[in-house]
Amino acid sequence: MVLDIKEVLTNKELIDKEVEIEGWIKTSRASKNFGFIELNDGSCFKSIQVVYDNELENFEQVQKFQLPSSLKVKGIVVESPGAKQNIEIHGKSIELMGVSNNDYPLQKKRHTMEYLRTKAHLRPRTNTFNAVFRVRSLIAFAIHKFFQENGFIYVHTPVITGSDAEGAGEMFQVTTLDLNEVPKENGKIDYSKDFFGKETNLTVSGQLEAEAFAHAFKNVYTFGPTFRAENSNTTRHAAEFWMIEPEMAFADLNDNMENAESMLKYVINYVLENAPDEMNFFNSFVDKNLLERLQNIVSNDFGRVTYTEAIELLEKSKEEFKYPVKWGIDLQTEHERYLTEKIFKKPIFVTNYPKEIKAFYMTLNEDGKTVAACDLLVPGIGEIIGGSQREHRLDVLKQRILDNGMDLETYEWYLDLRRYGSVITSGYGLGFERAVMYITGMGNIRDVIPFPRTVGSAEF
Amino acid sequence: MVLDIKEVLTNKELIDKEVEIEGWIKTSRASKNFGFIELNDGSCFKSIQVVYDNELENFEQVQKFQLPSSLKVKGIVVESPGAKQNIEIHGKSIELMGVSNNDYPLQKKRHTMEYLRTKAHLRPRTNTFNAVFRVRSLIAFAIHKFFQENGFIYVHTPVITGSDAEGAGEMFQVTTLDLNEVPKENGKIDYSKDFFGKETNLTVSGQLEAEAFAHAFKNVYTFGPTFRAENSNTTRHAAEFWMIEPEMAFADLNDNMENAESMLKYVINYVLENAPDEMNFFNSFVDKNLLERLQNIVSNDFGRVTYTEAIELLEKSKEEFKYPVKWGIDLQTEHERYLTEKIFKKPIFVTNYPKEIKAFYMTLNEDGKTVAACDLLVPGIGEIIGGSQREHRLDVLKQRILDNGMDLETYEWYLDLRRYGSVITSGYGLGFERAVMYITGMGNIRDVIPFPRTVGSAEF
Repeated sequence: MVLDIKEVLTNKELIDKEVEIEGWIKTSRASKNFGFIELNDGSCFKSIQVVYDNELENFEQVQKFQLPSSLKVKGIVVESPGAKQNIEIHGKSIELMGVSNNDYPLQKKRHTMEYLRTKAHLRPRTNTFNAVFRVRSLIAFAIHKFFQENGFIYVHTPVITGSDAEGAGEMFQVTTLDLNEVPKENGKIDYSKDFFGKETNLTVSGQLEAEAFAHAFKNVYTFGPTFRAENSNTTRHAAEFWMIEPEMAFADLNDNMENAESMLKYVINYVLENAPDEMNFFNSFVDKNLLERLQNIVSNDFGRVTYTEAIELLEKSKEEFKYPVKWGIDLQTEHERYLTEKIFKKPIFVTNYPKEIKAFYMTLNEDGKTVAACDLLVPGIGEIIGGSQREHRLDVLKQRILDNGMDLETYEWYLDLRRYGSVITSGYGLGFERAVMYITGMGNIRDVIPFPRTVGSAEF
Repeated sequence: MVLDIKEVLTNKELIDKEVEIEGWIKTSRASKNFGFIELNDGSCFKSIQVVYDNELENFEQVQKFQLPSSLKVKGIVVESPGAKQNIEIHGKSIELMGVSNNDYPLQKKRHTMEYLRTKAHLRPRTNTFNAVFRVRSLIAFAIHKFFQENGFIYVHTPVITGSDAEGAGEMFQVTTLDLNEVPKENGKIDYSKDFFGKETNLTVSGQLEAEAFAHAFKNVYTFGPTFRAENSNTTRHAAEFWMIEPEMAFADLNDNMENAESMLKYVINYVLENAPDEMNFFNSFVDKNLLERLQNIVSNDFGRVTYTEAIELLEKSKEEFKYPVKWGIDLQTEHERYLTEKIFKKPIFVTNYPKEIKAFYMTLNEDGKTVAACDLLVPGIGEIIGGSQREHRLDVLKQRILDNGMDLETYEWYLDLRRYGSVITSGYGLGFERAVMYITGMGNIRDVIPFPRTVGSAEF
């Protein structure tokens, strides 16, 4: 039976036994009578060293195998104390499974991130991307595990949406109409001919639908793709990204922040525990302060400050910001990072923002000026979570919809939640890729998504 | 502190203690001196009975609360042996949180499934849909758990795809072009003006991208939304559905079937263990044979039969099929169900289909006529999983692409996987909603999706 390399590297009972492994050549060195192959099978970050000598029947042939040829190796597991890696294989037979052409685009040398993006189908074979995408997978699972263990129901909210109410200008349209001959009726597009019989877009958020489910299950969460047709070519924006949106009935702003804090700590701890090799790699080669920063986060309480206090702190700081600070402004990344990095030196929730800069569905506070929002700011990133207590009063919600220039009819079903057993409900949104960047230290969102979609680019 | 009703119903240490709970009224009965309220908070399928009497300050008011008003109840936990449900609350104070209008669309009576679909934002509050969507969530988590515990990496393959190669006619187009004035150049649509600078669609499968990752991580899986713009108004087709696509390097068709069988059994066992109330409900009210069928599946080995043998069995059966049986046809649901329900009476894998009816990427068998495919057929549904060993030989794969009238250039990156360390790789696709229907006994795909998207319908 063929064993995973992970098993061979960790199971001490295999020492001195003969095993069979399969994998791809990461490096190969040869001398007159010996050869060394680092073999990786993807079961773990580490590779295993296969040592072979000229007793091997196909010794000369093996010395010429190019990376990343795939091999089947039979050999003895040997402990080699003192070596960087203390388990190796003494190869008794090495069989070629799949040859590699010698024009392999990722030869053993440094490549730029930009170049590797053009090879998105091969880059997971490099150390950096192997670590990134394994950690991405672990983060995703940790999020599911956290919510499921806390009794949350996972809801798949729709990707295709017929409601064009929110941020319509930045949505992707979904259609089966023939763009060569768009059907029209009285000069207007005839959407009765489209697949769904009306105009449809890709979702920007599943929150409102999740709220409907929270009114049945108390605690729910979404975890799915969301889309923005924003023409912004930055290191933090992608047109397609994944988002987690928990929604809790019978929960106020305070419960919301407690849940977000526990969730983030749980996820970081899970990754530190389950991917030590990958995290050490990031700490050595991507961000030297990564582990210290993450340890700091899991072992400290997050700070809390109101928007009004935050503005005062920024004004008092005498720091020169590109965007001037005064009550009423939307916080920019420079302000967010100053607050969390310089003033608090840890993650902080900023609460109770001016209603003008926040969404209609947030609870209007008694002051009539602010809403019960809570954004989580973290060092190195700025905002990573945005949340709020939802407006549960039917009359106030209706007025807020009208005040925002939206029409009540589109929101009739949403208003129903306030008509039939309304309760205080809170929730937040976590950009999944932001979390992956934060936990890996990677600086560009294109490098934490398997096949990124950004303005002008939808390859593979 | 407010407790979950689930906690109150299951924690024996709370008996005779005073607790606080919150929830929605499911039913309410009142008599002169007493009242009974079934309260549900979504933490579990079961409701708890709150008994109150005229000592209550607001006794008369409480008697008039309409379902599904939300309440906060303080009271003593009491064991009531002999009752259907042996824990109840003797209410000491009952406080209204959110009133319900008396035009609540889901009054306590039978509603048709069709009617409930028009109230998709409220239907999770009914017993049936509460059970369906809780089980849907558990199935999703069980799938993640199975793959993660077996060392698989979760890959988010792209939703928006620039490759229009597969099944182009049935894809949704994604665009930011103004449909009122589609930009043209020499009479053709000028896609350089579109968001991605080219024509893009919603994905129909993440398999090819998952294969790229399997060549780095050995074992990977996708779990994400996929789309078909098929104009088919059936109980089994939705335009938007979720799919799981595992992909395993160093794995042949046999490994593939073993994984699929273990996965399905694991998921069924997980649901039986974690949702006994919901599963009993389905068995009583949706499908009387459900539990027997599922028990049968987890405790028996799945059958295996080649396509050629299956055709012979169908021919020998003398059954009159709507679609006549002969070697070379694609199996229809009637054939699939006859095989699994009448002949084998258990799930079966059908292997080695004629190459003409299967995809180009499947390994061509030595006979030159069949490919190494494996479809899993289950009683009551027909096909639930479709899989294959992938063609790992570069020259054969190229020829198969050409034979299928497709162009090599689109697949250059996919061919790279066979150029640089090719290995035998296998994988399969599981339609998530098919699995949910199968495990719950629900008969219409619209009733296992929170907000279904089907031809002519994209509400909420």
